[in-house]
Amino acid sequence: MIKMGVIGYGYWGPNIVRNFMSIENAGVVAISDKKEAALARAKKDYPDIQLTRHSDDILNSPKIDAVAIVTPVYTHFELAKKALKNHKHIFDEKPFTASTAEAEELIELAEKNKVKIMVDHTFLFTGAVRKTKEIIKEGALGDLYYYDSTRVNLGLFQHDINVIWDLAPHDLSIMDFLIEKKPSAILATGAEHFGRGLEDVAYITVFFDDNMIAHFNVNWLSPVKIRMTLIGGEKKMLVWNDMEQDEKVKIYDRGVNITNKEGIYELLVSYRSGDIWTPRVGQTEALRLEARHFTDCILNDKTPVNDGQAGLRVVKILEASDRSLKTRGKLVKI
Amino acid sequence: MIKMGVIGYGYWGPNIVRNFMSIENAGVVAISDKKEAALARAKKDYPDIQLTRHSDDILNSPKIDAVAIVTPVYTHFELAKKALKNHKHIFDEKPFTASTAEAEELIELAEKNKVKIMVDHTFLFTGAVRKTKEIIKEGALGDLYYYDSTRVNLGLFQHDINVIWDLAPHDLSIMDFLIEKKPSAILATGAEHFGRGLEDVAYITVFFDDNMIAHFNVNWLSPVKIRMTLIGGEKKMLVWNDMEQDEKVKIYDRGVNITNKEGIYELLVSYRSGDIWTPRVGQTEALRLEARHFTDCILNDKTPVNDGQAGLRVVKILEASDRSLKTRGKLVKI
Amino acid sequence: MIKMGVIGYGYWGPNIVRNFMSIENAGVVAISDKKEAALARAKKDYPDIQLTRHSDDILNSPKIDAVAIVTPVYTHFELAKKALKNHKHIFDEKPFTASTAEAEELIELAEKNKVKIMVDHTFLFTGAVRKTKEIIKEGALGDLYYYDSTRVNLGLFQHDINVIWDLAPHDLSIMDFLIEKKPSAILATGAEHFGRGLEDVAYITVFFDDNMIAHFNVNWLSPVKIRMTLIGGEKKMLVWNDMEQDEKVKIYDRGVNITNKEGIYELLVSYRSGDIWTPRVGQTEALRLEARHFTDCILNDKTPVNDGQAGLRVVKILEASDRSLKTRGKLVKI
Amino acid sequence: MIKMGVIGYGYWGPNIVRNFMSIENAGVVAISDKKEAALARAKKDYPDIQLTRHSDDILNSPKIDAVAIVTPVYTHFELAKKALKNHKHIFDEKPFTASTAEAEELIELAEKNKVKIMVDHTFLFTGAVRKTKEIIKEGALGDLYYYDSTRVNLGLFQHDINVIWDLAPHDLSIMDFLIEKKPSAILATGAEHFGRGLEDVAYITVFFDDNMIAHFNVNWLSPVKIRMTLIGGEKKMLVWNDMEQDEKVKIYDRGVNITNKEGIYELLVSYRSGDIWTPRVGQTEALRLEARHFTDCILNDKTPVNDGQAGLRVVKILEASDRSLKTRGKLVKI
Repeated sequence: MIKMGVIGYGYWGPNIVRNFMSIENAGVVAISDKKEAALARAKKDYPDIQLTRHSDDILNSPKIDAVAIVTPVYTHFELAKKALKNHKHIFDEKPFTASTAEAEELIELAEKNKVKIMVDHTFLFTGAVRKTKEIIKEGALGDLYYYDSTRVNLGLFQHDINVIWDLAPHDLSIMDFLIEKKPSAILATGAEHFGRGLEDVAYITVFFDDNMIAHFNVNWLSPVKIRMTLIGGEKKMLVWNDMEQDEKVKIYDRGVNITNKEGIYELLVSYRSGDIWTPRVGQTEALRLEARHFTDCILNDKTPVNDGQAGLRVVKILEASDRSLKTRGKLVKI
Repeated sequence: MIKMGVIGYGYWGPNIVRNFMSIENAGVVAISDKKEAALARAKKDYPDIQLTRHSDDILNSPKIDAVAIVTPVYTHFELAKKALKNHKHIFDEKPFTASTAEAEELIELAEKNKVKIMVDHTFLFTGAVRKTKEIIKEGALGDLYYYDSTRVNLGLFQHDINVIWDLAPHDLSIMDFLIEKKPSAILATGAEHFGRGLEDVAYITVFFDDNMIAHFNVNWLSPVKIRMTLIGGEKKMLVWNDMEQDEKVKIYDRGVNITNKEGIYELLVSYRSGDIWTPRVGQTEALRLEARHFTDCILNDKTPVNDGQAGLRVVKILEASDRSLKTRGKLVKI
Repeated sequence: MIKMGVIGYGYWGPNIVRNFMSIENAGVVAISDKKEAALARAKKDYPDIQLTRHSDDILNSPKIDAVAIVTPVYTHFELAKKALKNHKHIFDEKPFTASTAEAEELIELAEKNKVKIMVDHTFLFTGAVRKTKEIIKEGALGDLYYYDSTRVNLGLFQHDINVIWDLAPHDLSIMDFLIEKKPSAILATGAEHFGRGLEDVAYITVFFDDNMIAHFNVNWLSPVKIRMTLIGGEKKMLVWNDMEQDEKVKIYDRGVNITNKEGIYELLVSYRSGDIWTPRVGQTEALRLEARHFTDCILNDKTPVNDGQAGLRVVKILEASDRSLKTRGKLVKI
Repeated sequence: MIKMGVIGYGYWGPNIVRNFMSIENAGVVAISDKKEAALARAKKDYPDIQLTRHSDDILNSPKIDAVAIVTPVYTHFELAKKALKNHKHIFDEKPFTASTAEAEELIELAEKNKVKIMVDHTFLFTGAVRKTKEIIKEGALGDLYYYDSTRVNLGLFQHDINVIWDLAPHDLSIMDFLIEKKPSAILATGAEHFGRGLEDVAYITVFFDDNMIAHFNVNWLSPVKIRMTLIGGEKKMLVWNDMEQDEKVKIYDRGVNITNKEGIYELLVSYRSGDIWTPRVGQTEALRLEARHFTDCILNDKTPVNDGQAGLRVVKILEASDRSLKTRGKLVKI
């Protein structure tokens, strides 16, 4: 039984607590938040859990095995470092840290102290992503041509980070999980419209060593909510439309074959347009599966799929995107 | 009555002929195509129109007032030059030319010889684009924040041009028409997957002097057909989904107001989420309206909205995109 | 402050409790359920509310002002009668009762004892239905031609009632609220496929004194979830698609005008096909608004829109539908 | 080579001519229409085909093998009778005839004179219906529970027939083809709103000897176009949405199993909710395949799937529907 402390009870914290309370091998024993209102809500929801305004009460408590850090990204490093130093496992809200340097230091510390880091890449545990992973892994799509993701909506504007740091961690962590390829270079463009110096519309291109390309469209100013990913492969193509209730993932038996006979004017192009298959995807709440994975990794000394390294890989792209954004789209190698 | 010659009777030529035959002040009197099969089709469709394998028969014919050039882009310049030299108006398939230099020379020649150039930016004459223009012009959207266009589908692969030159002229000409702003810089990324040196997936970012941004997603390898444009404005937002049968254009009374009170942590963000209005859009075939506009411009000496300058502005972005593509996304000022 | 007792803590009961706990002028002071498991859940959710296995503890308690009856329909009458006799207001799950005779007796008793009956026609309090009511009331649709409702889905099969008694009360109560017309005759057809004598697919036609017609398609065996209502009017037409996230109600400026000149072959038919308007609809939880309406009616002695009479009108159609079903669609006048 | 005469060149006639002209073993040699304007159109489309205002020129011509009757339903019988008497095969627009008596007489006459009758149930030759037939035939859906069809739209109002005779022949002929079961009784309700005595909204229930049920919703007054058929089976369920461009037919591995253990309160209900399969359907124009089927049946003495008997079965339901409509939904056995 893992005894957990949760730091931060704002928008996402209650989901973390609820799910860690609902699984077999874990329980939340303490919650901290700087805001009285948040603690009042926590008290109403869980009268029996210890509440505090001071994260140190959790970070230093000898009866706590693991800490969930559910606070803004710029606070992650200090909180996580303290937790790891105190030999506590951490479950860290995404994005992992505000810089690659921070991420690397935390990873090293966790290794030294033999504790686990899990970064809350919740989407990896959704039925849609797990099914997609399965399909890609078994080679059904063949070699991948492109990964094209759109995540746009009206709001919520963040105070301290731009739209890339807010929305792209979802998609970057998903791509990292699905594709298992190392990006070679990043390029990002965007614009901001409210004099805050924080982009509200942005586009990221990710290059790989081969001719696969990935692209991410993130936007806080869209009147419609679109969450769609297209994955084009040599053999088949997959569309994941997360706004669909019932038919989130579709696999299209479609493609094109080009045979370059003799010279450019003798191309033989043939199109394939076959059936579509819409697999059933699991309905279990993603965060519950993720919480179970966390306890399983701790109890059985396994490496989380969403470990510190996964968190670091995402932060690397975010950091590179920022650098590219600031230079109007200069290519940043990584 | 404008007597027209049409060069090229492949995929699009028959539509040109049919529409110029259907309007009041024009008639097609000659068609040329190098391929016997195309001429045979033309003969079946229009037994009374003169047919020839030699475009010169049209370009040099004294009885022809205007020439529609419906051939691959690399042939436009020579054909158009000859037509303009012979004092014929031209109706040129998009994209206008293969380079800005060619476009500029043709424009100059047309001015000298006092004939008209119209570039076949057909979409400008669709009900959806005309309605959108009306809405933007009357200021309903307010200042524009972004223009985000997606045009993806499976095929058709072109032999001699990449996906940008094939698909983006539609969207670039539409944006040019709707926005009436001069781009300041272009950046394009993409990938190709069949060893032909022609990108089949590409993304273009267009910067302007103010903080508006435009983005174009074009793709020949998508299993699903998406043709969607989002236009975000200060007051309202517009979505044009060209795959909808009945509700192509929607105007959303949605937006965000950010008041920066005191320092970054005191932002007041308010969201507006009001009604949606789906105006009826005209159903007349776009090419017919465009053909009428052509004859009207000739007969009444008007400047087409889609004149040589409009064609040139699109070619400028295409050319810049190519340069950017070849350098993995380097920014190209224009 | 209305002190409420809630009888039944199965699927819907928790929503009733949560909402009556969340509003200003009411509070739940006791919950009863025959099942220990239900009470255990209630205890976890609300440690401070009195729990009992005996509904009589609630029905006879002098400290309770009003009783919510959230049990299967065949139990409503006895429970409601006891509550009303003890001068308690009742909030009764839909359908109101298992027969019109029962409904009439309860209405009479409530009047005698000067207490309120509210039947839980929750949908009347959704943003979509309230907006539709507003539109119809202001005459925007003109005279109504038809009301066509579809509510189909896979499951949930009920043990003791057929698909009409399960699903149609939603739509019948909505129509009753929106249309404010008295049906003159009912006809229902259907089929059952599992040897239980309970139809799982059914269709109801409702006739009125004028030429308006209403139709209800209810089905427990549909692979897809459809919840759509079309309302055709002389001036405009309205579609309410409850499966839409964001654009539930659309008003179409569409219609047909037929002028019968001279004899049947001289009809002048003209179609109108104008804009579509998608009004924003309220997002507040329907049950919360309904709970507020309940307390408001009690405290200020008002008649609920969904009073016993509204419940009776729905039960009348259900009863007639059953009679019609049993005779393979015989017309039942009401 | 079948030499055809076509009577009627209004809305649908041109499609008939075009398709019979495009296939191998047939050709149209004469067209008749009472209206000069129609003949003028025909002359423009086909300068070489003989044109006449008198159908008798076709019906009596010795050089004509088969006659397509593309005129209003009330004229079918006389025209068809004359054609059959003159030993000509007929291709008859749907619905076959205005009454079952007429249909039976024509069938008898055709048998006597050894010529073929084909009724233009075009939809049977669409890719979607042929694929659905294949799926049902191989037993993939299991025993059928229900067939639920909706075909609604704005207009086109017909002058001489109600909405059932206009729209339902499509769906009734499709059901007849797919299900291959004999209906036992019919019931129809509807309403009309323009004082013409012709229903513009109607609903048909079709009963069978087993517990399968079919239902048809037809409406000329809907602001939205819906063409959807749900077929519920014991093993799987199928949805055909004809408004979809690309995914018209979907097969859902969904269903419900009910095990009646001991008494009504011991039902064991289990739901199955598996994958969805969207087969590719053929894209060939239905009318072309139908035209080929017609010539094949004549040349090789085969019985058309859409022969006079099929036409008669549809007319039987139409006739019964009318009788039921006139009596406010009285059940009509057939």
